[in-house]
Amino acid sequence: MLNKNVETFIGCDKDYLAAKVVLFGAPFDSTTSFRPGTRFASKVMRGDSFGIETYSPYQDKDLVTDTNVFDAGDLELPFGNTQRVLQEIEAFTANILDDDKVPVMIGGEHLVTLGAVRAVSKKYPDLHIIHFDAHTDLREDYLGESLSHATVIRRVWELVGDDKINQFGIRSGEKEEFVFAAEHNFINKFNLHGLEDVVKKLAGKPVYFTLDLDVLDPSIFPGTGTPEAGGISFSELLNGVLSLSGLNIVGCDVNELSPVYDHSGTSTAVACKILREILLVMEARA
Amino acid sequence: MLNKNVETFIGCDKDYLAAKVVLFGAPFDSTTSFRPGTRFASKVMRGDSFGIETYSPYQDKDLVTDTNVFDAGDLELPFGNTQRVLQEIEAFTANILDDDKVPVMIGGEHLVTLGAVRAVSKKYPDLHIIHFDAHTDLREDYLGESLSHATVIRRVWELVGDDKINQFGIRSGEKEEFVFAAEHNFINKFNLHGLEDVVKKLAGKPVYFTLDLDVLDPSIFPGTGTPEAGGISFSELLNGVLSLSGLNIVGCDVNELSPVYDHSGTSTAVACKILREILLVMEARA
Amino acid sequence: MLNKNVETFIGCDKDYLAAKVVLFGAPFDSTTSFRPGTRFASKVMRGDSFGIETYSPYQDKDLVTDTNVFDAGDLELPFGNTQRVLQEIEAFTANILDDDKVPVMIGGEHLVTLGAVRAVSKKYPDLHIIHFDAHTDLREDYLGESLSHATVIRRVWELVGDDKINQFGIRSGEKEEFVFAAEHNFINKFNLHGLEDVVKKLAGKPVYFTLDLDVLDPSIFPGTGTPEAGGISFSELLNGVLSLSGLNIVGCDVNELSPVYDHSGTSTAVACKILREILLVMEARA
Amino acid sequence: MLNKNVETFIGCDKDYLAAKVVLFGAPFDSTTSFRPGTRFASKVMRGDSFGIETYSPYQDKDLVTDTNVFDAGDLELPFGNTQRVLQEIEAFTANILDDDKVPVMIGGEHLVTLGAVRAVSKKYPDLHIIHFDAHTDLREDYLGESLSHATVIRRVWELVGDDKINQFGIRSGEKEEFVFAAEHNFINKFNLHGLEDVVKKLAGKPVYFTLDLDVLDPSIFPGTGTPEAGGISFSELLNGVLSLSGLNIVGCDVNELSPVYDHSGTSTAVACKILREILLVMEARA
Amino acid sequence: MLNKNVETFIGCDKDYLAAKVVLFGAPFDSTTSFRPGTRFASKVMRGDSFGIETYSPYQDKDLVTDTNVFDAGDLELPFGNTQRVLQEIEAFTANILDDDKVPVMIGGEHLVTLGAVRAVSKKYPDLHIIHFDAHTDLREDYLGESLSHATVIRRVWELVGDDKINQFGIRSGEKEEFVFAAEHNFINKFNLHGLEDVVKKLAGKPVYFTLDLDVLDPSIFPGTGTPEAGGISFSELLNGVLSLSGLNIVGCDVNELSPVYDHSGTSTAVACKILREILLVMEARA
Amino acid sequence: MLNKNVETFIGCDKDYLAAKVVLFGAPFDSTTSFRPGTRFASKVMRGDSFGIETYSPYQDKDLVTDTNVFDAGDLELPFGNTQRVLQEIEAFTANILDDDKVPVMIGGEHLVTLGAVRAVSKKYPDLHIIHFDAHTDLREDYLGESLSHATVIRRVWELVGDDKINQFGIRSGEKEEFVFAAEHNFINKFNLHGLEDVVKKLAGKPVYFTLDLDVLDPSIFPGTGTPEAGGISFSELLNGVLSLSGLNIVGCDVNELSPVYDHSGTSTAVACKILREILLVMEARA
Repeated sequence: MLNKNVETFIGCDKDYLAAKVVLFGAPFDSTTSFRPGTRFASKVMRGDSFGIETYSPYQDKDLVTDTNVFDAGDLELPFGNTQRVLQEIEAFTANILDDDKVPVMIGGEHLVTLGAVRAVSKKYPDLHIIHFDAHTDLREDYLGESLSHATVIRRVWELVGDDKINQFGIRSGEKEEFVFAAEHNFINKFNLHGLEDVVKKLAGKPVYFTLDLDVLDPSIFPGTGTPEAGGISFSELLNGVLSLSGLNIVGCDVNELSPVYDHSGTSTAVACKILREILLVMEARA
Repeated sequence: MLNKNVETFIGCDKDYLAAKVVLFGAPFDSTTSFRPGTRFASKVMRGDSFGIETYSPYQDKDLVTDTNVFDAGDLELPFGNTQRVLQEIEAFTANILDDDKVPVMIGGEHLVTLGAVRAVSKKYPDLHIIHFDAHTDLREDYLGESLSHATVIRRVWELVGDDKINQFGIRSGEKEEFVFAAEHNFINKFNLHGLEDVVKKLAGKPVYFTLDLDVLDPSIFPGTGTPEAGGISFSELLNGVLSLSGLNIVGCDVNELSPVYDHSGTSTAVACKILREILLVMEARA
Repeated sequence: MLNKNVETFIGCDKDYLAAKVVLFGAPFDSTTSFRPGTRFASKVMRGDSFGIETYSPYQDKDLVTDTNVFDAGDLELPFGNTQRVLQEIEAFTANILDDDKVPVMIGGEHLVTLGAVRAVSKKYPDLHIIHFDAHTDLREDYLGESLSHATVIRRVWELVGDDKINQFGIRSGEKEEFVFAAEHNFINKFNLHGLEDVVKKLAGKPVYFTLDLDVLDPSIFPGTGTPEAGGISFSELLNGVLSLSGLNIVGCDVNELSPVYDHSGTSTAVACKILREILLVMEARA
Repeated sequence: MLNKNVETFIGCDKDYLAAKVVLFGAPFDSTTSFRPGTRFASKVMRGDSFGIETYSPYQDKDLVTDTNVFDAGDLELPFGNTQRVLQEIEAFTANILDDDKVPVMIGGEHLVTLGAVRAVSKKYPDLHIIHFDAHTDLREDYLGESLSHATVIRRVWELVGDDKINQFGIRSGEKEEFVFAAEHNFINKFNLHGLEDVVKKLAGKPVYFTLDLDVLDPSIFPGTGTPEAGGISFSELLNGVLSLSGLNIVGCDVNELSPVYDHSGTSTAVACKILREILLVMEARA
Repeated sequence: MLNKNVETFIGCDKDYLAAKVVLFGAPFDSTTSFRPGTRFASKVMRGDSFGIETYSPYQDKDLVTDTNVFDAGDLELPFGNTQRVLQEIEAFTANILDDDKVPVMIGGEHLVTLGAVRAVSKKYPDLHIIHFDAHTDLREDYLGESLSHATVIRRVWELVGDDKINQFGIRSGEKEEFVFAAEHNFINKFNLHGLEDVVKKLAGKPVYFTLDLDVLDPSIFPGTGTPEAGGISFSELLNGVLSLSGLNIVGCDVNELSPVYDHSGTSTAVACKILREILLVMEARA
Repeated sequence: MLNKNVETFIGCDKDYLAAKVVLFGAPFDSTTSFRPGTRFASKVMRGDSFGIETYSPYQDKDLVTDTNVFDAGDLELPFGNTQRVLQEIEAFTANILDDDKVPVMIGGEHLVTLGAVRAVSKKYPDLHIIHFDAHTDLREDYLGESLSHATVIRRVWELVGDDKINQFGIRSGEKEEFVFAAEHNFINKFNLHGLEDVVKKLAGKPVYFTLDLDVLDPSIFPGTGTPEAGGISFSELLNGVLSLSGLNIVGCDVNELSPVYDHSGTSTAVACKILREILLVMEARA
């Protein structure tokens, strides 16, 4: 007798009960202002993840032997109703947290982070945010809308407050956003300088890591809605991720891969590899 | 002294006051359930329209000499807030109607039709609809949402009532939708058979023509979110459009071109050519 | 508690025990002589199948309510070892047949048919073949190799013998192949003429239906390794498939979709739709 | 000892002395007004020609056994100097004619035809033209330029005179061009109707056949600079070519394939197949 | 009453009279020897410029508040007539200079620079050139043609003379070109080393800055006719541009973006961002 | 009288007898486990090589004047029969070696290296290997197959023995492969550090250089079957190649370019340029 066809991200096929980390996709891109398409990221990543290995020569660890990740597949989200989408992401994330597991979400556009952070910040009121991105995402509103990929970190700030958000790699935004960031957050423009100090400062504290992949230079990550030149290299991002290994990461997301804009598959391969490294950093058994 | 750079659909550069038809783009695709991207249709059509001629050998008429079309450019719509988008389309359309001009809208996903029909049906309570499409678009809701590209004709039916909607070319939907169509509308599956009779029947009445370009076979129109094989040929569509020439078309839209899915530009060229023929049919001076 | 992420072709998520038809992928393309890539067909079809409906307005039947199809996922095949690949396909097919279910295989290149037919012809010694294709596939060898996509029907002929193979739509091959076909098979060049007679003749007999999708014109199916102009239209193929409804189809495959050559996704959408119709034809007989 | 790498169109590797037909490429597209790229047609066609067979099941003839075609490769043309390009094409064509061979040229944009016709019409003063195209190409000038892809047939008319040019499939142009055609040429809009009569009329006379491949519908031939919907099908074109078999074709060209606009390779495959059929029609007359 | 649809590069919608800088497109690529397509650069850049911000975090300046740029749209140029094209560019540039404004031209292939420099060097006889490029562009002729993208800087040298041209980033050419450059110009191969010294030396002098974007590595700028590996990074280019801020730039062009070769849009986004920075450098000097 | 159309890699058109280096293509990719397509590398490289120059400003040498390279074209290999393919490559390579020429092979997938090394190691029993790659390629078997692109260096090790293989740039593999490499080979992960020492050590010894182009970062080389982020830059590779200039290279291959995955042509341009540099390094006349 045959089993139904199970598809997971490579090496993430553990049982739910045994899993410490729960991976899921949030295929939503309705507020994207330039080029939509991130809704397909999680599906394409599962398929193409078999082009990379489960073993990391950077960490000398393997997804199969050194982690316990369960892949729940994708949420089914009602495109066009932003409020409801965020509620569904929040509810799903809360369930994972209730089972004492750590949620790792694959976007979708960056706004999906708000749904997850709503749930995570309820469980961890002292939540700190590490945010890698090309864009500030700190607008008060976008064409009058408060819920947008361009406002998501501003909404997160309303939840966690001043001096909790640490932004890196930012190289695009309105002047007002940079001013806001300087007043309320830690911001390091253009690269990841200062990350080590932030990691030290956050030792022992609950941290949510949100990775907008467009922090990468579009040379290595063209498959995104809004390519923004001048980003960090893959090695810089990899080293940044590895430097998080001592942190208490209680939630995480990887977002803004839009596969249709990169027919070479490189962007997806990059996303898969960095997710592997994140999972190994987060979950490596003691 | 130089003038600012004006960009219009080819041959549609008349002054507003002189214009009988007002062309505008509604770049919105937030409720698209499969592959988004129609938001770029109007912009790409303006650019590529210069690959076709203003003269139609089918009608022996020319956009430059035989029509008065004003191209207003694109609305700036708040992605992700479906309600507001429809209100803005409705308001813009109402303004055009108030000036006794005929609105021709380039979508965008098919839901934009609802905004336009709300305005048009207020001015013309006895409004009839001619609807070319691959899909019924008659769902009561889609994943719980009443406003969706998959429900738009159902919402239009709520405005105009029974026996006002005439559907052609339909070849995809849920069984319930076909049942609904048979009870409340005129529906002709798969092709445009029966169009002539409908045209005769609607002589003198106000008609809104909504053209979902995926009624075309994807061989000639692959650049759309949901390609559905078995559609009509370009010649069938062209003849269908030409057969509308006697009607009193008081509003019109052309939607669901998604240029990113057709790198050859053929789909855009098709959309441009059929829009040229529609404009010539609608507006040819007496 | 959450379930593992199950991915099936749309509407094909029945339990194995209840299923009458078993769908599986054979991702193999090592002997492809021109452009490889068909190995990705089954995976991409599962993902994109959610762009079509489960309901067929052509047959007024629905995959969910009118069929019992189990999707077993893809075989893991050793690229480059053609002999072994065929053995694995044969063994897997034989298991399905042993459980009194009907195998439906998604290729892969056309050679995968040989593995399946080896198993099916053992169970059904009087097996007849219906073969839609652009190419004869009747070479004795290709560059000295007897196992090749270009020789597959010749190898099948060695299994089933004279006057068992019925070829339609053929428009490419060497002269010798056409001569061979005329002597040993039924062949109808260029289109499906004569299919009705063949269907009548095969009433009650066990039939294997092998559909090389490049029988379609490349206008509607460009996503294949060897596009060959002058093919049949989607409607002709659809009608051909519908005409098989009275037959006793004991095995089937759909092959030669190569998604990478069609960025529009049209070819995949075509393959999904025709597979839906085949499944409805095959399985809705009770 | 090894030979240098010779690349020819499939089956066209005969020696020059033995050859009756000489194939060559004219990679020029400098006057293209919309999307350039036809310069790569001949090179890509040689490479992809190995995806088709040398045998035609339509004519039951084979390029290897039934023709003597020499492939001279491509001219090296100075882009941007239109005058000189035409002179070089004319000189090269004249050399072929001097050796009593028939030139078959692969464009390039349609203007290359003028260079060839200059040479051919000198040798055959009573030259007749058969012209398949989507566009009239009859402008007096284009943005003030008399030498342009949009004026080429007007320039040819200046060489051959009234009632010598027979145009088919035309569906785009300015009104004045259609008027000119009606007065000076034979023109059949939209399709190939009337071709049989023309063929009868031209029996025994020297004929130059110029095939702008955009006469095909862009569904089957998207890889061209100016896709124009509503064209003829591949079968119509094939039948048109086959109907020329009785004519005395003294020169020929196939132009306007622009491979970069069709990633599927279908357009190139179409061009290769139709060129095979043309060569078989032209050369198998002894 | 509605206004006609005005399309400009983002933030460049000032009135002509108020403008200090006039932006315009020169869509010409007829002499391109490898892959044409740069004619679409300016149009695509205007459309995609809305994917970047008007604010530069590098310069803390904003196109809206800190510059006065007028976008005149594109010239309409007769493809294939190189002489005339250069005359039209020269005349248009001269008009801008006559109005005491600074021309910034978007190519097009690199030859368009010659038209602009003809006009600029007449007004500023002591003109100096800063030239970023992958290629020397110093051939005496190309296939016998003196006017070519491969000869443009040689032609410029004939206008401005020895020791006026400063070439950076050059990594491709014939040996003779490098020899010529060493004798007549300043040349720095492979990167921008020495730019600072050149900037110091040119303080107060009239400078024309011509940026062939293929100076960038094709990893970040694949969308160009002749990708040449080993180029400078975006950051190097950005810093190079910022270092020009003290100069008296009296004319400028940005050329050789060919959007069709980069479906990801990254190359266009790069071109837009670097143009923003150039405009801010040039114009924010008061 | 005209000559047949000869196509070679740019500047590699010397006569066989005079040639010191023989270039040939091995278009084979049947064991590729992820995305096939490398079979087209050699053909596409010949065509696109005319986009680069024959002169290297890095080495101040020119393919035309400073090398004697004969391009033999491509082998015709039976896809799907891995054993036979390797035999044919071995035999062809042996012939070149028998004529005292140096073979330079363009893959195909990396397994083709095994065929060449079989021949070269017979002539040079003390053969050393320099191997640039993203992947270890050291598996004992892949899905039970001993002949695979993933096992090729393991098979080469069986021929040449311990401490003969020098691996650089490796960043992907199973843990066991890295362990094996550390025990039997020299391996430097992630980059080319240590190459200088290896070059010194191998002075005077026969060296086979196998370059899997995916050692490059996919930002500059996306056109490959298995993109693996974190690779070396083009400059690093170029410098690595230049550092080999003192070595006695008795055989070489460049493999794993898969053009279909990079529509920009950048990957092909990179492969062409690095091949030019390799040929100049190998063959520069004394």
